[in-house]
Amino acid sequence: MEVMTGTLVLLRHGNSEWNAKNLFTGWVDVDLDAKGEDEARRGGEQLKEYGVLPDVVHTSVLRRAIRTSEIALHIADRHWIPVKRSWRLNERHYGALQGKDKKQTLETYGEEQFMLWRRSYDVPPPPIEDDSEFSQFSDPRYAELAPELKPRAECLKDVLERALPYWYDAIVPDLRAGKTVLVAAHGNSLRAIVKHLDGISDEAIAKLNIPTGFPLRYELDDDLHPITKGGTYLDPQAAKDAAAAVANQGR
Amino acid sequence: MEVMTGTLVLLRHGNSEWNAKNLFTGWVDVDLDAKGEDEARRGGEQLKEYGVLPDVVHTSVLRRAIRTSEIALHIADRHWIPVKRSWRLNERHYGALQGKDKKQTLETYGEEQFMLWRRSYDVPPPPIEDDSEFSQFSDPRYAELAPELKPRAECLKDVLERALPYWYDAIVPDLRAGKTVLVAAHGNSLRAIVKHLDGISDEAIAKLNIPTGFPLRYELDDDLHPITKGGTYLDPQAAKDAAAAVANQGR
Repeated sequence: MEVMTGTLVLLRHGNSEWNAKNLFTGWVDVDLDAKGEDEARRGGEQLKEYGVLPDVVHTSVLRRAIRTSEIALHIADRHWIPVKRSWRLNERHYGALQGKDKKQTLETYGEEQFMLWRRSYDVPPPPIEDDSEFSQFSDPRYAELAPELKPRAECLKDVLERALPYWYDAIVPDLRAGKTVLVAAHGNSLRAIVKHLDGISDEAIAKLNIPTGFPLRYELDDDLHPITKGGTYLDPQAAKDAAAAVANQGR
Repeated sequence: MEVMTGTLVLLRHGNSEWNAKNLFTGWVDVDLDAKGEDEARRGGEQLKEYGVLPDVVHTSVLRRAIRTSEIALHIADRHWIPVKRSWRLNERHYGALQGKDKKQTLETYGEEQFMLWRRSYDVPPPPIEDDSEFSQFSDPRYAELAPELKPRAECLKDVLERALPYWYDAIVPDLRAGKTVLVAAHGNSLRAIVKHLDGISDEAIAKLNIPTGFPLRYELDDDLHPITKGGTYLDPQAAKDAAAAVANQGR
């Protein structure tokens, strides 16, 4: 029997209320703003236009990814597909930086420390206190997690390590079943998956930016390796321009 | 070990574009209109206000029920809970009446035939032709169903018979696990569940109307019988007034 492998489509959520305010968000559950809703609609229009029709969607448990998927699938007439969610697809936990202004943080700590926290592979920001208003330690959506699984800060390496079990146990079986699988998630959880898929080094991943609201398609071979490295944006030029803008965030 | 039984919450979708036009809808996948979105928001506000917080949601595969659940859960801050969908929670398939004007149908066929189609327990409307623009026989969301499961018209008895396996296999286990279970569905799939739960006779069910957008709570004993027959609306008086209005639809 031949092993079928489906199509993977990654979709980063659109602009949130805190992107607009230039605050570190992480696990804080902020909503999309009007621009983010437009980006989600555009993502859905692209899915429909290019005939990339998801059979199943995987999301984080954060509102901005969930609503992005709902809006995009509604537009693409795929609102009825099965939905699976996991905290393992959440954005990187930004620790004590959550709720802090990006520009102010840059000024206070300097360029080097700022970029280390934002882009280093294995240096997490300082941990958040459990009694901080921006801690999610007691959020009911994580009540069933063992306490040692709940992060107080994460680097990208941490994100990759907690995302991979979900990739292997939940997403890969859907791909193996030949499905078109939409993963609606976050800048860093998607970077982690892309790092794994494309075999990007710990150093090179720092430079990879994924633009918001542009569906990124990966066709995978029988060994789950990308047939085209880096995947293919449904609308490549627009996605490239948007990625360049992300790289300059916080300046 | 004591068997725990959770809380069941039934939520009928709000006004749709075809409710507003007074057309028979059934399995046609029309969207909520602005009034329906408001009703969904009100439902979500009630869930939040009364502290009835779903741990899991079950929906049909029709847009108006799906969007009602998404809007209500977003408002109630429960957007992150697991989602399960099934065609077995769909609205009654209205057969050849789908897409037809209710008032015009009443005038053409007369009060007796009209009420038989609308309210009889076991007389389905005439079957829809597979090549009708309002047939869902080839809709991709039903592609995995055996052809003999796809209805061409249903009476309420048919709805109950196809909904019960889902009730027993998917909803009951969530209740047995002690969860608060939201079922976001349709006038007739919810009437079928209520008929089963409350042991309503084939005759008496004709008179039962469930208003749109009002969460209806059932607490169940260990035998899955309602502790309070008929359940309890979170806002009983408003729900009662709305139900009376539904009874006069199509007049």
